[in-house]
Amino acid sequence: MPKIESVDLFYVSMPVVEDISDGSQDALLVRVEAAGEVGWGEAEASPLPSIASWIAPMSHGFCHPICASVLGQTLETPEDIRRINDRVKRRSLDILQTDHTLSGIDEALWDLLGHQRQEPVWKILGYKKSWPKTPYASQLFGLTPEETLKKAKAVVADGYRASKFGWSNFGLGTVKDDADHLMAAREGLGKDGILLVDVGCVFGADVDRAAKRLKALKEARATWYEEPLDRDALGEYKELSRRTPKVKLAGGEGAYTFLMAKQMMDLAGVSFIQIDAGRIGGITPAKQAADYAKKKGVTFVNHTFTSHLQLSASLQPYAGMKDHDLSEYPVELKAVAKAITKNTIGRDKNGLIKAPDAPGLGMEIDVDALKPYLIDVSIKVGGKSLYETPILRK
Amino acid sequence: MPKIESVDLFYVSMPVVEDISDGSQDALLVRVEAAGEVGWGEAEASPLPSIASWIAPMSHGFCHPICASVLGQTLETPEDIRRINDRVKRRSLDILQTDHTLSGIDEALWDLLGHQRQEPVWKILGYKKSWPKTPYASQLFGLTPEETLKKAKAVVADGYRASKFGWSNFGLGTVKDDADHLMAAREGLGKDGILLVDVGCVFGADVDRAAKRLKALKEARATWYEEPLDRDALGEYKELSRRTPKVKLAGGEGAYTFLMAKQMMDLAGVSFIQIDAGRIGGITPAKQAADYAKKKGVTFVNHTFTSHLQLSASLQPYAGMKDHDLSEYPVELKAVAKAITKNTIGRDKNGLIKAPDAPGLGMEIDVDALKPYLIDVSIKVGGKSLYETPILRK
Repeated sequence: MPKIESVDLFYVSMPVVEDISDGSQDALLVRVEAAGEVGWGEAEASPLPSIASWIAPMSHGFCHPICASVLGQTLETPEDIRRINDRVKRRSLDILQTDHTLSGIDEALWDLLGHQRQEPVWKILGYKKSWPKTPYASQLFGLTPEETLKKAKAVVADGYRASKFGWSNFGLGTVKDDADHLMAAREGLGKDGILLVDVGCVFGADVDRAAKRLKALKEARATWYEEPLDRDALGEYKELSRRTPKVKLAGGEGAYTFLMAKQMMDLAGVSFIQIDAGRIGGITPAKQAADYAKKKGVTFVNHTFTSHLQLSASLQPYAGMKDHDLSEYPVELKAVAKAITKNTIGRDKNGLIKAPDAPGLGMEIDVDALKPYLIDVSIKVGGKSLYETPILRK
Repeated sequence: MPKIESVDLFYVSMPVVEDISDGSQDALLVRVEAAGEVGWGEAEASPLPSIASWIAPMSHGFCHPICASVLGQTLETPEDIRRINDRVKRRSLDILQTDHTLSGIDEALWDLLGHQRQEPVWKILGYKKSWPKTPYASQLFGLTPEETLKKAKAVVADGYRASKFGWSNFGLGTVKDDADHLMAAREGLGKDGILLVDVGCVFGADVDRAAKRLKALKEARATWYEEPLDRDALGEYKELSRRTPKVKLAGGEGAYTFLMAKQMMDLAGVSFIQIDAGRIGGITPAKQAADYAKKKGVTFVNHTFTSHLQLSASLQPYAGMKDHDLSEYPVELKAVAKAITKNTIGRDKNGLIKAPDAPGLGMEIDVDALKPYLIDVSIKVGGKSLYETPILRK
């Protein structure tokens, strides 16, 4: 029976990381090897605490280092991956960082299984076909409505039907300021453009302030209003979802377990659930969330802010769900995130994207391109070396 | 204006850590210094990932190392601590480990403020008096009902009115097995003993299996049924709270933000909210949770599984709430957890405990006793030393 022989974690980073919300400035890559096959995954997580959770000395029975639940395990079937995922979660329950780290490992396990079987992950997950999705380009609102208008026009010129605007100063000024930006975005995208709005939890738990923007969102025909409130404020989301005029809510990127995503769908009144396979604990819980979304009539969308390896991983869980047809598409990646894969998930002649048909996650890791970005890490505890950056190999 | 000059993190551990649920086998201590005053706190967290989150190189604007939001900050008023707490949460939002690490820092800041003002923390929090609480001794169910009976009798002989039984094999065998243990515990505690039951999330999200134990819990007159379900399963808790016979539910130790605790109270139907100041982000959010519990008619209880420093920190947020009068009291601490403080929070002649009247958290750190347990940690990133275990001093 094939056993997991090695798991290597690699911290790669731009030489200079800027204090901006661009999450593609560094990455934690995971390479898994079993019986001659290799799989790669990526955790959308702070690399150093994640590496530390991998090798942290045991604190007690529910605080094992993650490595103790992965190395040496049998890997032959999807059930093996689910078992490993459960095992990690139970035995490392009280290390808060666990689920972020696990995400990269779980993705690599699925990639490896796909290579073993010479099948794409979405097929192993039970789908017959990888359906095309409409990619949306994410960008920040401009500093002025004129700038927002220009940005929206540029995206349309670049062939996108959908665009997400977010963060920047939204919610920090007046309701009128925000309305002006929304109308500018709508004008720039044109009548048929899909306008998505992401405000980065700016209103905390304040439903009233969040609700003041509903009128302008409705007028600008925003398809969704993303993360108006704090990620934990489920009851407040529900309250906001009932306010008029009705605007559909989106959220879920902060969910780091399937059950958190489930509560978001059950209790928070969201119409779109946005799942990052690199955060929720990997493809395993992301697929559970996709299945549950389908059942509940909530639309599943990937959340992806980093490499095309991560994009592929986040597309797999809903690749076969035809009607769930929007996809977050990272367009302005930093060099390190581009260096991760030799190939990319490109737009077809209709401007659509889909999860690759190639085995595993379908992405080829570019080890040579990554080498200049590899960060040397050394962790010693009690005089013993617990982690040294491994050799980066295919 | 007094500024935070230094923050030192110390990892202390038993020489051998056993694979049992006893959380007192290691600890992460935090020492803060500002303008000649010192404060100490403890994070109920895996030490190595927490240290890593303290010094992790920035990944992007919402992934700063925690130290960047604490060092050099003004510390003179409770408002300063709240500001620092908010600042850490916002700027390190995407490091999952953040709130656990922050817990130890926030506790140390309150301790320091208490020393500056020569007042106990509970007084600075606005309470007039530290009311006595009934401590409950926590222990595992026995392997047989006879053993459970013996354990219950021993606790009564030791002067406790209340005892919590938990984990072990509860929920893993038949409903009859569990009922036998519950009746044995009741018999051992006597008619007036307070019986609390903690089953460590054993039923996952399975309300039906959890509900099968309600009858026996009711017959044994359990005051609460703690963590029958997974920590994220809010809707499932609510469903269980409506099943008959009615048994009051307890939970919340997994909450690592105030808003998570709030959802637990708003949406999960719990009657007792159990907050660990060493996990929820410190005394600041624990006090918010206590205020909210009072407003909602939910009973606040500390969750404490480690040292008396942590016990004091977890008592402060509800020290002045007279009617919220139960307290988890750690009775079987490992040597390292005992070594942390010179003094302890003892039971008075009525068998009750309370948050100390001494300044700060009222606990004296035993630096000399701790030294043998100090673990040397060294973390280097990109050839630069980011963390070396500091010198342990008063």
